[in-house]
Amino acid sequence: MSGLIALDWGTSSLRAFRFDGEGRLEETRARPWGIRHLPEGGYDAALAEITGGWPVLPRLACGMVGSRNGWREMPYLDTPANAAQLGGALGSLRAADGLDVHLVPGLRDPFGPDVMRGEETQLIGAMALRPSLAEAATFILPGTHSKWAEVRDGAVAGFRTLMTGELFAVLRQHSILGATGAEAVNDAEAFARGVASARDSGAAGALSRLFSTRALMLDGALAPASVPDYLSGLLIGEEFRAALAGGLGGRDTPLQPIGDAALCERYRRAAVLFDIELPPPIADAAAHGLWRLATQAGLVHDAFQESRAC
Amino acid sequence: MSGLIALDWGTSSLRAFRFDGEGRLEETRARPWGIRHLPEGGYDAALAEITGGWPVLPRLACGMVGSRNGWREMPYLDTPANAAQLGGALGSLRAADGLDVHLVPGLRDPFGPDVMRGEETQLIGAMALRPSLAEAATFILPGTHSKWAEVRDGAVAGFRTLMTGELFAVLRQHSILGATGAEAVNDAEAFARGVASARDSGAAGALSRLFSTRALMLDGALAPASVPDYLSGLLIGEEFRAALAGGLGGRDTPLQPIGDAALCERYRRAAVLFDIELPPPIADAAAHGLWRLATQAGLVHDAFQESRAC
Repeated sequence: MSGLIALDWGTSSLRAFRFDGEGRLEETRARPWGIRHLPEGGYDAALAEITGGWPVLPRLACGMVGSRNGWREMPYLDTPANAAQLGGALGSLRAADGLDVHLVPGLRDPFGPDVMRGEETQLIGAMALRPSLAEAATFILPGTHSKWAEVRDGAVAGFRTLMTGELFAVLRQHSILGATGAEAVNDAEAFARGVASARDSGAAGALSRLFSTRALMLDGALAPASVPDYLSGLLIGEEFRAALAGGLGGRDTPLQPIGDAALCERYRRAAVLFDIELPPPIADAAAHGLWRLATQAGLVHDAFQESRAC
Repeated sequence: MSGLIALDWGTSSLRAFRFDGEGRLEETRARPWGIRHLPEGGYDAALAEITGGWPVLPRLACGMVGSRNGWREMPYLDTPANAAQLGGALGSLRAADGLDVHLVPGLRDPFGPDVMRGEETQLIGAMALRPSLAEAATFILPGTHSKWAEVRDGAVAGFRTLMTGELFAVLRQHSILGATGAEAVNDAEAFARGVASARDSGAAGALSRLFSTRALMLDGALAPASVPDYLSGLLIGEEFRAALAGGLGGRDTPLQPIGDAALCERYRRAAVLFDIELPPPIADAAAHGLWRLATQAGLVHDAFQESRAC
């Protein structure tokens, strides 16, 4: 029996993928057991449950499971780093079932400094799924901590984190901007207004327009229920403005989103206002990245790769 | 008996000033009774207590007491607006003691849009205390919602709010940047590093460097206990970077802080890294602004002004 159990284990969720010996994804399972929300019994119990009934196979995990607050801390590899380097730097731990769990290291961009855990695996997977992008592309991975990553010659060359998602959450839940007294509604027009305001903020940036969210509401020019979508547009627009102003996502290389379809759709709508057409996002990038790194590390025998090499 | 009871009534605190008939500040009292923290009995009880034992005098209040969530909502006056216009636009309410409380309107900058309540009175007071600045100056009023205000020919010409203080508070209390596991220490060097990082972020802005706070800590390049001062420097530095990039605080006009000495000292240290030397802050600006507006409105007889006018 050959194959791989691949684990994408983040802060708020755990996903497990079972691959057959030829890299075909046979089954996917998901649990709300991020490293901050483990079930009773902790990591071992979560692992046993989510892989219940699956054959004994090599296991490889990426994400915050390898962080300081995770199961075992893995070091960061400095950029630039490619699949061979990441695959050659796996660590491992012995689980309670007596078998190993291998862990992918995180990546560190010394020019930030900046760090990522989990996204490096998604980037490897995205390059495996779209080999044409491995030469030169900028990937956007929206989320709590959005990443803009530059890829060159199959390696992650550098990246920058923008705390868009977390900023939105804390401002909405804990700042005066969230105190609207109204139930939020979807308002695509308010979202677009927010994006445009960030785009037009120039070098000052949208931080200097944050308070305008409230001023517009007091003015009666923004419905209280539309404040969250306006704020979301302002912050995602600021992510584009700042990334482009910082030299990320130059127009000579493709810009490719990776991740959740609904969130990437927001990014696609924001990009339009910057005259950028974003393609549909790449899905299941983490799973395919884990497969790719497992083959690099020799954890599994990659029949397809071998046949290509002949 | 002539004179004025002036009230600076904000979100988190209430200060009362008693002026004699010639505009001399005779007594100051402070209570932690901002409009969100009123004592039992509400506004009337707070007013009765803080003015207890004082003679019956005209009463004038500025600040959030005149907001939608305050005692009585006052409209905003559009910029540009001077002391005569603000003094001519006071409103009033009848307190439980049967006497009036007059209220200063807020200011609205239609080019933000942006709004202020209370700072307009501080600006009027600062111009009264430093007439040489009334011609042309930029005032910085640091705080939860910092204001940068342009003054021209005795009028508030325009302003911009930067949510520096609130952003610092929510990021420290509710984001991953606050999760340092360490008790904060004062670290002037970390503060300066944060300011410099914001200054050097160029057109991308410091929002794109927010996460570097955590990366530096994980790197061992920033002590967990110094993260708050680094973050404070990054956000105050971003306030300067954004304000200057947005055309506020041009080097041809004086830049003058107003407000709390400790906070203004942080701003002075940040300004040094932008090659700007900030003078000591103007204190008691609200009290003197209330006096000035009261004389403009005819609430008190300003012997000094009259003698000047002769």
